[in-house]
Amino acid sequence: MMKKALFASDHAGVDLKKILVAAVTSWGYTSQDLGPCDLQPVDYPDYARRLCEALLASQGGDIGVLICGSGIGMSIMANRFKGIRGALCLSTEMANLSRRHNNANVLILGARLTTCSEAATDILKTFLDTPYEGGRHDQRISKFDN
Amino acid sequence: MMKKALFASDHAGVDLKKILVAAVTSWGYTSQDLGPCDLQPVDYPDYARRLCEALLASQGGDIGVLICGSGIGMSIMANRFKGIRGALCLSTEMANLSRRHNNANVLILGARLTTCSEAATDILKTFLDTPYEGGRHDQRISKFDN
Repeated sequence: MMKKALFASDHAGVDLKKILVAAVTSWGYTSQDLGPCDLQPVDYPDYARRLCEALLASQGGDIGVLICGSGIGMSIMANRFKGIRGALCLSTEMANLSRRHNNANVLILGARLTTCSEAATDILKTFLDTPYEGGRHDQRISKFDN
Repeated sequence: MMKKALFASDHAGVDLKKILVAAVTSWGYTSQDLGPCDLQPVDYPDYARRLCEALLASQGGDIGVLICGSGIGMSIMANRFKGIRGALCLSTEMANLSRRHNNANVLILGARLTTCSEAATDILKTFLDTPYEGGRHDQRISKFDN
C-alpha cells in the first residue's frame, strides 16, 4: 500500500515545503499540500491543526510534515493532538531516533534552521525509510495518550 | 520575585540534569529535581507528566527543564498538556526563538545530541534570560489551547 505524505506550513515554510513535496512525489509517494501556497503571513497553529486532523482521519501508515520558521511552534501545536507524535528534527540522526524510538508520525522542520534543501530532503528520506523498533519503546509511547 | 526551575529527565538525562541544576543554583534560582536520581531505566512520559503537572500548579514565571536521549519523546509528552509550551532546543538560537516567539515555559534537551555540558548550560542561560516578545505572537500562541 502506497503511503501518503501530508504537508502544511506557515509562510516561512512555503518554499521548503514545495521542494519536499516534489521530492516525495519523485520517490513514489502520494502527497497533499494543505497550505498555505503563498507568502502571506498566517498563524502556524491553524495549519498544524489542519494537518493533524487530516492525518488522524487518514489510513494508518500515512505521515505528516509540518514546517515553520524554527519548528518549535509547530511542535507545540501538533503534539496537542492525541495520536500525533510530532518530532522536530534537525538532522538525519534525529529523524532516525524519532522513528525507531518514538514511532513519530509527523516530521517537523524549521526552515530558518534547516536552510539547506538537500539536508531537509535527507532528513525526510530518513524519516520515511526508518521503521519503528517496538520492544521496550511500546510501553513508553503508549503513555503519550493514556 | 525569584523564579523557580523544575527539572526532570529519564535515565539518559540524569548526568546532564545534575550539571544544569548546579548551574541554575549558582545563578540564584530556586531549583527542584523531580527525578530520577539514578541510572535505572525509566519511562520518560512518567517524568514529563510529573514535571508538567508541577509546573502548571506552580506560580507563573516558573520554568521547567526536561531531558531524555533525543528530547523528542519528552517534547511529544510535555506538549500534550494545555498550558505547557515545550521547546526542544539544540542551540542558543533555538532557545532564543522559543522564548521570543513561542513564550516557551519548558526547555527540552537531548542528552545524546547536546553532549557538551557547556553548550547545554549556554542554551539554558539563554532560555532563562530571553523575554517573550508578544505582539503578533500573542494571537498565535493563544491558539495552542483554544
